[in-house]
Amino acid sequence: MNVPMRLTVRISVGLVVVHLTGAAMVCAADPLPSWDEGASKKAIVDFVERVTAKGSPDYVAPADRIATFDNDGCLWSEQPVYFQLLFAIDRVKQLAPQHPEWKTEQPFKAVLEGDKKTLAKAGMQGLAKLIMASHAGMTTDEFAQTVRDWLKTARHPRFKRPYDELVFQPMLELLDYLRANGFKTYIVSGGGIEFLRVFAEEAYGIPPEQVIGSSIKTKFELRDGQPVIVRLPEIDFIDDKEGKPVAINKFIGRRPIAAFGNSDGDLQMLQWTAAGEGPRFCLLVHHTDAEREWAYDRDSHIGKLDKGLDEAKRRGWTVVDMKRDWNVVYPFEERN
Amino acid sequence: MNVPMRLTVRISVGLVVVHLTGAAMVCAADPLPSWDEGASKKAIVDFVERVTAKGSPDYVAPADRIATFDNDGCLWSEQPVYFQLLFAIDRVKQLAPQHPEWKTEQPFKAVLEGDKKTLAKAGMQGLAKLIMASHAGMTTDEFAQTVRDWLKTARHPRFKRPYDELVFQPMLELLDYLRANGFKTYIVSGGGIEFLRVFAEEAYGIPPEQVIGSSIKTKFELRDGQPVIVRLPEIDFIDDKEGKPVAINKFIGRRPIAAFGNSDGDLQMLQWTAAGEGPRFCLLVHHTDAEREWAYDRDSHIGKLDKGLDEAKRRGWTVVDMKRDWNVVYPFEERN
Repeated sequence: MNVPMRLTVRISVGLVVVHLTGAAMVCAADPLPSWDEGASKKAIVDFVERVTAKGSPDYVAPADRIATFDNDGCLWSEQPVYFQLLFAIDRVKQLAPQHPEWKTEQPFKAVLEGDKKTLAKAGMQGLAKLIMASHAGMTTDEFAQTVRDWLKTARHPRFKRPYDELVFQPMLELLDYLRANGFKTYIVSGGGIEFLRVFAEEAYGIPPEQVIGSSIKTKFELRDGQPVIVRLPEIDFIDDKEGKPVAINKFIGRRPIAAFGNSDGDLQMLQWTAAGEGPRFCLLVHHTDAEREWAYDRDSHIGKLDKGLDEAKRRGWTVVDMKRDWNVVYPFEERN
Repeated sequence: MNVPMRLTVRISVGLVVVHLTGAAMVCAADPLPSWDEGASKKAIVDFVERVTAKGSPDYVAPADRIATFDNDGCLWSEQPVYFQLLFAIDRVKQLAPQHPEWKTEQPFKAVLEGDKKTLAKAGMQGLAKLIMASHAGMTTDEFAQTVRDWLKTARHPRFKRPYDELVFQPMLELLDYLRANGFKTYIVSGGGIEFLRVFAEEAYGIPPEQVIGSSIKTKFELRDGQPVIVRLPEIDFIDDKEGKPVAINKFIGRRPIAAFGNSDGDLQMLQWTAAGEGPRFCLLVHHTDAEREWAYDRDSHIGKLDKGLDEAKRRGWTVVDMKRDWNVVYPFEERN
């Protein structure tokens, strides 16, 4: 298991190459060192080479090289429950003294009683309810600050690390590799758009304007002459399942040529991507590694992968077997 | 009145300069040749030089150089009524035989009777109603095609030219100038997002993912196994007034450092932009040229500029006097 520094990866690919004088180094470098030399890695590299080779019948102009990524379970872990749900839980606990009614109302009751089973079943809709109740009534700037503070102090129950360290090293390399080949990388997540934007740039190199997610409504107002945007306790949009292609169409206005997910919530995004003309690439991360990460699919309450697995097999989409295809899961493994 | 080709403008600024050998040419070229050498042009150039000069206390990193532009009345004309309203009128006339109820229902009645006065008063809300009725029930691809077809055939009643020729030459130069200086240019318009995206890239060099506008709801579905996105007869979002900063926050997730508008519908976008920390630039195009374009402000049903004009004076925002500040209005003037 050999994880080069990310700097090495950046040097090895794309435009930067022309500035190097040591040609041997360029040839030797592998942009995807955490990926096993198997079918998944080969499929990725083949696709990228096909769409970037000038003169190739499959050549795609850089402006159309749009790649969309789910976040939970695709770019970072999502067990034992969505990390944003854990953030919401911490917020709800903080705010509980001001909300006695939460003692009997679900999913708040489950939060305050530590009833993880009920919470896990609440899914994206339950998450949205907790978000509305715990995240509204403050300005967007204030909200971003609470997320920033939480990421600094909260620790994952199993790994005892900040949540933004539980990102997938192979996916970081993949994002870098695609960008070095002229792709614009987007997050298209069921998670909250303003939650994701707090860490997406640092964690994944994805700037705020390329982060799409679920949202609550907001309102512009002047407070003592100062303009603020206030978060309202009302769902605006759930960016999951059928919502993903809808959001892609609204935010990007172009159809991706590559899409990456890990659950049935990503199926429609992959279908929409695959149905475009010309070369297409669809990939699902299959969680098969209970030892290094988690193993789950068809029966999971989080990140259920059932229909997607069948459709991937039928259509020949790439299914990553995490245990077999990833030499490294998390960046910190190498540093241990 | 001297309008150089846009190619010349592109050569004169930014990164491309390093490839030139003829230094004299670079020094002589003016990135804003259609702008009169007055206070407005000076304010623009001063701002751009301040935020791009490394080591300057006002230096802004390229990623934060976000500039947002209104479209109607700011990048192209909006008289005698919003051009999208004229598109909707043509669509409603085409579809009228299938909708006998439109004969008595406003604003459809006004459309079918050619009652321009009533239509002009309908404003953005009326436009939205016409859009819903005339644009829904088709896929996004089909809709884009109807806009494309219309732009090819429809002619402006006064200038007898395609609508996308009624763009403002000085604003095209300004967009190019900002982009050459590392700015990311966005449209933030009350007009329809999917209407704008059909021509924004060709007309303004602004790609679909940097176009924000009003929207109707859409739905993902499979038709004979083929995924499509269908436009629904329901308003999703009106990107006007207080909606503009809300949409900027949702789509971009960063506050612009420069904003450009022409009406009270842009006021909140300019307030939101101006209230950020560090150097800021706000500009309003004041329509003062009845001869070459139109003259209107406080009492206009289209593009009313009243509160915005007062606030611009109070805050020292740049107000472009079209008649005085623009040597050329439309690109075609020079070619005549």
